[in-house]
Amino acid sequence: MATQLTKEKGASGREYKVKDINEADFGRLEIDLAEAEMPGLMACRAEFGPSKPFKGVRIAGSLHMTIQTAVLIETLVALGAEVRWCSCNIFSTQDHAASAIARDSASVFAWKGETLEEYWWCTEQALTWPDGEGADLLVDDGGDATLIIHEGTKAEKAYAEDKTLPDPNSTTNPEFKIVLSIIRDTLKKDPTKWTRMAERMQGVSEETTTGVKRLYEMQDAGTLLFPAINVNDSVTKSKFDNVYGCRHSLPDGIMRATDVMIAGKTAFIAGYGDVGKGCASAMKAGGARVIVSEIDPICALQACMEGYQVRLYDTPGIKRQNIKPQVDRFIFPDGHGIIVLAEGRLLNLGCATGHPSFVMSCSFTNQVIAQLELWNERKSGRYEKKVYVLPKHLDEKVAALHLPKLGAKLTRLSPEQAAYINVSADGPYKPPAYRY
Amino acid sequence: MATQLTKEKGASGREYKVKDINEADFGRLEIDLAEAEMPGLMACRAEFGPSKPFKGVRIAGSLHMTIQTAVLIETLVALGAEVRWCSCNIFSTQDHAASAIARDSASVFAWKGETLEEYWWCTEQALTWPDGEGADLLVDDGGDATLIIHEGTKAEKAYAEDKTLPDPNSTTNPEFKIVLSIIRDTLKKDPTKWTRMAERMQGVSEETTTGVKRLYEMQDAGTLLFPAINVNDSVTKSKFDNVYGCRHSLPDGIMRATDVMIAGKTAFIAGYGDVGKGCASAMKAGGARVIVSEIDPICALQACMEGYQVRLYDTPGIKRQNIKPQVDRFIFPDGHGIIVLAEGRLLNLGCATGHPSFVMSCSFTNQVIAQLELWNERKSGRYEKKVYVLPKHLDEKVAALHLPKLGAKLTRLSPEQAAYINVSADGPYKPPAYRY
Amino acid sequence: MATQLTKEKGASGREYKVKDINEADFGRLEIDLAEAEMPGLMACRAEFGPSKPFKGVRIAGSLHMTIQTAVLIETLVALGAEVRWCSCNIFSTQDHAASAIARDSASVFAWKGETLEEYWWCTEQALTWPDGEGADLLVDDGGDATLIIHEGTKAEKAYAEDKTLPDPNSTTNPEFKIVLSIIRDTLKKDPTKWTRMAERMQGVSEETTTGVKRLYEMQDAGTLLFPAINVNDSVTKSKFDNVYGCRHSLPDGIMRATDVMIAGKTAFIAGYGDVGKGCASAMKAGGARVIVSEIDPICALQACMEGYQVRLYDTPGIKRQNIKPQVDRFIFPDGHGIIVLAEGRLLNLGCATGHPSFVMSCSFTNQVIAQLELWNERKSGRYEKKVYVLPKHLDEKVAALHLPKLGAKLTRLSPEQAAYINVSADGPYKPPAYRY
Amino acid sequence: MATQLTKEKGASGREYKVKDINEADFGRLEIDLAEAEMPGLMACRAEFGPSKPFKGVRIAGSLHMTIQTAVLIETLVALGAEVRWCSCNIFSTQDHAASAIARDSASVFAWKGETLEEYWWCTEQALTWPDGEGADLLVDDGGDATLIIHEGTKAEKAYAEDKTLPDPNSTTNPEFKIVLSIIRDTLKKDPTKWTRMAERMQGVSEETTTGVKRLYEMQDAGTLLFPAINVNDSVTKSKFDNVYGCRHSLPDGIMRATDVMIAGKTAFIAGYGDVGKGCASAMKAGGARVIVSEIDPICALQACMEGYQVRLYDTPGIKRQNIKPQVDRFIFPDGHGIIVLAEGRLLNLGCATGHPSFVMSCSFTNQVIAQLELWNERKSGRYEKKVYVLPKHLDEKVAALHLPKLGAKLTRLSPEQAAYINVSADGPYKPPAYRY
Repeated sequence: MATQLTKEKGASGREYKVKDINEADFGRLEIDLAEAEMPGLMACRAEFGPSKPFKGVRIAGSLHMTIQTAVLIETLVALGAEVRWCSCNIFSTQDHAASAIARDSASVFAWKGETLEEYWWCTEQALTWPDGEGADLLVDDGGDATLIIHEGTKAEKAYAEDKTLPDPNSTTNPEFKIVLSIIRDTLKKDPTKWTRMAERMQGVSEETTTGVKRLYEMQDAGTLLFPAINVNDSVTKSKFDNVYGCRHSLPDGIMRATDVMIAGKTAFIAGYGDVGKGCASAMKAGGARVIVSEIDPICALQACMEGYQVRLYDTPGIKRQNIKPQVDRFIFPDGHGIIVLAEGRLLNLGCATGHPSFVMSCSFTNQVIAQLELWNERKSGRYEKKVYVLPKHLDEKVAALHLPKLGAKLTRLSPEQAAYINVSADGPYKPPAYRY
Repeated sequence: MATQLTKEKGASGREYKVKDINEADFGRLEIDLAEAEMPGLMACRAEFGPSKPFKGVRIAGSLHMTIQTAVLIETLVALGAEVRWCSCNIFSTQDHAASAIARDSASVFAWKGETLEEYWWCTEQALTWPDGEGADLLVDDGGDATLIIHEGTKAEKAYAEDKTLPDPNSTTNPEFKIVLSIIRDTLKKDPTKWTRMAERMQGVSEETTTGVKRLYEMQDAGTLLFPAINVNDSVTKSKFDNVYGCRHSLPDGIMRATDVMIAGKTAFIAGYGDVGKGCASAMKAGGARVIVSEIDPICALQACMEGYQVRLYDTPGIKRQNIKPQVDRFIFPDGHGIIVLAEGRLLNLGCATGHPSFVMSCSFTNQVIAQLELWNERKSGRYEKKVYVLPKHLDEKVAALHLPKLGAKLTRLSPEQAAYINVSADGPYKPPAYRY
Repeated sequence: MATQLTKEKGASGREYKVKDINEADFGRLEIDLAEAEMPGLMACRAEFGPSKPFKGVRIAGSLHMTIQTAVLIETLVALGAEVRWCSCNIFSTQDHAASAIARDSASVFAWKGETLEEYWWCTEQALTWPDGEGADLLVDDGGDATLIIHEGTKAEKAYAEDKTLPDPNSTTNPEFKIVLSIIRDTLKKDPTKWTRMAERMQGVSEETTTGVKRLYEMQDAGTLLFPAINVNDSVTKSKFDNVYGCRHSLPDGIMRATDVMIAGKTAFIAGYGDVGKGCASAMKAGGARVIVSEIDPICALQACMEGYQVRLYDTPGIKRQNIKPQVDRFIFPDGHGIIVLAEGRLLNLGCATGHPSFVMSCSFTNQVIAQLELWNERKSGRYEKKVYVLPKHLDEKVAALHLPKLGAKLTRLSPEQAAYINVSADGPYKPPAYRY
Repeated sequence: MATQLTKEKGASGREYKVKDINEADFGRLEIDLAEAEMPGLMACRAEFGPSKPFKGVRIAGSLHMTIQTAVLIETLVALGAEVRWCSCNIFSTQDHAASAIARDSASVFAWKGETLEEYWWCTEQALTWPDGEGADLLVDDGGDATLIIHEGTKAEKAYAEDKTLPDPNSTTNPEFKIVLSIIRDTLKKDPTKWTRMAERMQGVSEETTTGVKRLYEMQDAGTLLFPAINVNDSVTKSKFDNVYGCRHSLPDGIMRATDVMIAGKTAFIAGYGDVGKGCASAMKAGGARVIVSEIDPICALQACMEGYQVRLYDTPGIKRQNIKPQVDRFIFPDGHGIIVLAEGRLLNLGCATGHPSFVMSCSFTNQVIAQLELWNERKSGRYEKKVYVLPKHLDEKVAALHLPKLGAKLTRLSPEQAAYINVSADGPYKPPAYRY
């Protein structure tokens, strides 16, 4: 079936495959609104746009093709890049966003509700330029694009040695079967495709925990083929996206899914990490009584200090009743029920529209800065084939770019003050282990 | 046009006119969920259902035909009433709610997007039983049903005296034109229809400020034809619906309409009454900085005590740009814009689904209790043709009915304690002017 | 012993009796600080000071002789009044405040730790001018000064009829015994003293519930001898003093008395009226988990809507252990203890310094305005021998006087706006039953 | 002067020097109350007391001699230690605490208001056992005790080489002059005193930033003479003491010092680190409007996300007026004033009683655990002459010891759950860089 998929070409000559190119106008309207909420990305356009640091640079991306991502893509384009994009999840594409980008800015291969075969076909298209070569830089989310390049290179090496072809039947994992099929097919047509792609690649910036974990494993095994920047652990990602993003999108999802009043209810929060902190704060603010379960005593004590009740809950025998898509009621032996949203997963994306643009602007500005860093330092030897977090001064820069939009005015240290507390007036302002 | 409208009949033999009777199953599912959130109404069913105090009583209603109202209607039915219903707003009907009620419980004449002619046709149907007679009791919201009965009676009196027919051209108000047309038509067929209806009516319970205001005007003019209970000013209505309802539904509406992050923004709240108090609390809780404008110095000082900034804002020359339905951007001379939702009106209903069931349960339990009070006291002379608020002990009862659902346990005064503070152990617990 | 008490005279020629006149400098310093926090009183000085509306008017006061009351007294003096003052509680005088006022502004008879005999001797002195006559106006707190005038008048009437002298042994109440003794003594020296005092009195403004309750009883019995204004039920008193005052002074008292961390603790609040609302809010804000007990279901439901747990607590057999003055530990059978502050009474005054000046400024500005109202309307017949609350526009004025200090700017209605919502642009802005 | 100081001996035979040994009873009463608030320390007594791990171990301490520290000292004693103590600040001793400890538990050399000579004399006494030898372990706060041992050892080495005596006139620092005088005096009497002391010392646990900074400098210079544990950077110290401690003690200090109402005021917080976060939260909770100044854009953005206003403030020409001890008013050219408490330093200790016991229990339990760790591992080679933070599982243990007191119940991972998220069911639960 994947063989039946065909790319289309727009007036611009760019290839794409989206659900309906006619949704582009609606997508553009929402992109316009989102731009006002993503000051970090817009500041990157203003600062770096004129000098076009990515002029002629090919950037491939595999990351949820949403309205917010559209603003990220168009920021990369504004800095001079040629961009190809796919989504990193078969359900997360917003089709009007994909259409607007396909029509106006970049090659997009993404639609809501892809099959797994379609998903990996899209990934390959995003990575392969019309001349058959790959990208100079990669934006990845979850590590799938990074994975196929590494697996392809490994297979090509084996093939070069003894003509071994990868065997899709060697694995029971349905998704990995497809990856091996694609690599077997490309081996026949172009037996050094993925190797050349890896060699050309100057680096990847990775968005999330899952992808970061894979990268560290490859680093430790010595198999990582290009430098990687771990965007996930920037303070402006983890302490903003997780805490403030969830504080916003948890009640949003609950209200859209159930219309149930939060005030007066008892909210049970499993875990008081960054996500739990944001969620508990939202429930308390909405007038709920909050009970927290924790295994980590430090986080448990933090919960107590905020007035939350900390308790051990067992799970008795319960029955599940489906109410509507993404809304299930679990009925307990005593007759009372609990409504579970999005099967207990990502209700903010499942039941609402995910994190708001502003907090995604923090995350994505990290991506742009990581891409710039990888490109600008490609010859300096600063980044080896290892995993890095962004230097603190760049993390601080991401925050700084978001302040003017909120009317905030940052204080600047005088030379005397800077000397007294022994930091540079330009930052970084905190030691590496500072916890914020 | 209105003449082309025809009533339908279901398997039950009841008349109705809804958008699509097949949406009844979906409506029933959501009604089931709402019941769990409306403990006051469910407690009324448990307490009064078995004795059927409304056995044989006809109740007409004109009030937004939503899921929550469906629970109200079925409570009246559970108490023995025969119910006919229409919506009090041309846009507010939830069609699946209307269908479920039409199929299962009561005669409904309502759909989303009625024309004004259709709206008043529905109102007349809700008031007119198949035998041509009217209702024993009325639930009204905004006073339209009360209005047509009063206007009809007035016209019939004039007609009986000198055969005068009302002249729709005597008014420029398009809606009142329609009312006069309907009355003129009924006069020809049944010249004492509205008079008999008013005589049969034991009383109306009115939901909102607009209707209450009209009732007080009629009371003062001596033209009120039956007793009225002002449900709007019950504590369990005004201090709950306004404060907690808005605290819930304001961020809900903003998030559904704009997906904009509330944290870090500056929220401007015009007025710090009950609604303003709820809204400001929601915005502060979401991480916004709140600025309040007020004309009332007491409310302004309350705002200060909560840490809000109180300011005088002028309105400069601004431009309006439509983004999508119910979402407009007003652009100021300096280029910055403000997004206005639902044209500045009822964004919680316009952009979201209105107040949650729990808080509506408080309002609607007042309705049920008001209806019971009017019916039970119909012969006692307790209620004259005037406007009354519910006695405080009934207001307290509404609150009491909602507590068990939240796991709250009320303390009961011992006889000694009750004597010491000089109240009855059964309430009321506060003097009439108490402000809560 | 009371006979041994002697009044002193200062350089000004004014009589006084305080603990140590040398504490006046320290008192003055704290009065200066308090003035900055009592903008309502200072605004009264600015507005009414130049015209001296109380020129030649005698005002007697019986109200806690604290720093804040000192600012009230000096405001009355600034408006032209001659003032005599005593405290309305044997423990509440701040001696440095009493000294500063005695030296600089008014006759004061008050010290911390009076005996009951001394207390009533002070009360008589505050009411009796050097010429043996009484005051034109009275500021009362708890109604003791009002009581002695009424009892004195009653006794003089009986004495005039049949030479009956009041018999202190006719009562078992030790305090009323003293009152009767004083009246018996004055009857011998001046048998119409209290009657002339009552006749001269243009009215009393009463500060608290206890006094207000007595006034309504006298009104209902037809025995009230002069008009009374109930300051206690002004919105700017009850909704500010009770809510915001307690929100401030509860944690203040707890921290000074115990140094115990509030965060993480469970706070049990008995009653969720205005005081309970302020207290619960303070405990929640400090990181405690709050449990509320209530008998009033409306207040209980309000507590639920704020996320508090509502519960019924029984009192088991417990032991009491004194830790230090005003701090007792009640030990439960299971060994755990509860620290009770100020024997469960007024811990904010007992363990800290009571409400802060700003909120007392709201209460006391009501007093000044009530006194002005009583004096200005003394001949108009506006106030009969009944109990009145301040008209709403004066209540609003009190609030307005406190806004500029907080940097708040009040919005003013345009004539069109005022007409549209049907209020005067100058207020009052709300109907009488509005609950704030 | 210092030569005139003489140690006293109690009934126990222990040496001490305190202000008034008769204050011991009052100190004991407050120590009893504090124990209930310091569950971590009490849990250490319960867990380790029976086995007496410090049996025969000499522990010297230099740390504010307060009620809370008394509970720390008696915990060390309960574990078997022989303790000698001095304060690390000339003003911070609570004399009743010092007396109770001196009478009942340990040798104390501390009183409120020491001269600098007396301070260092006390320090030497705390470090020197009656047999002329030193301690096995050291608890230090600010590093003064550590300093004198290192300086003494250095001087003794120089003296051993060429009979050089330290010259107090070689420094202009008045405090260091005193240190050199003491060392010169000991050199004459016992030329290897400090060297033997350093050799005997198994390690120091340091409480604060200042001391920690000195330790890292010595570590980097290779001059550190024994292992050091940095207690300051435990999560249960820095994220609790700084955030929750200040949230409690800031309003406490303000209220005790000024009695000014916090509600309605504008609070200006300089810096939004951990301390600023606690302070801003307290001011917001009290009803103030909060403005934050920051140089660090990440912290500034966090402030925005909580709804605080972030602003750049310049300092104009201002005048200072002293109101009372620790309370100054700075008057600005336009006439408005700002009250500065405790000269801008540690107002919680200066104007109130410092952090509450519960949060100090977190800090001090780290101390006890650090001391145990240093002693138990003294022969294992685990700790070299370097600076260490406590391993995360001990940090987690400190938190765990405080949970039961708050009624919190910790959830325990099942083996399956632990395996799934790849941590031990016994912790540590987070990676080292986790930010809490």
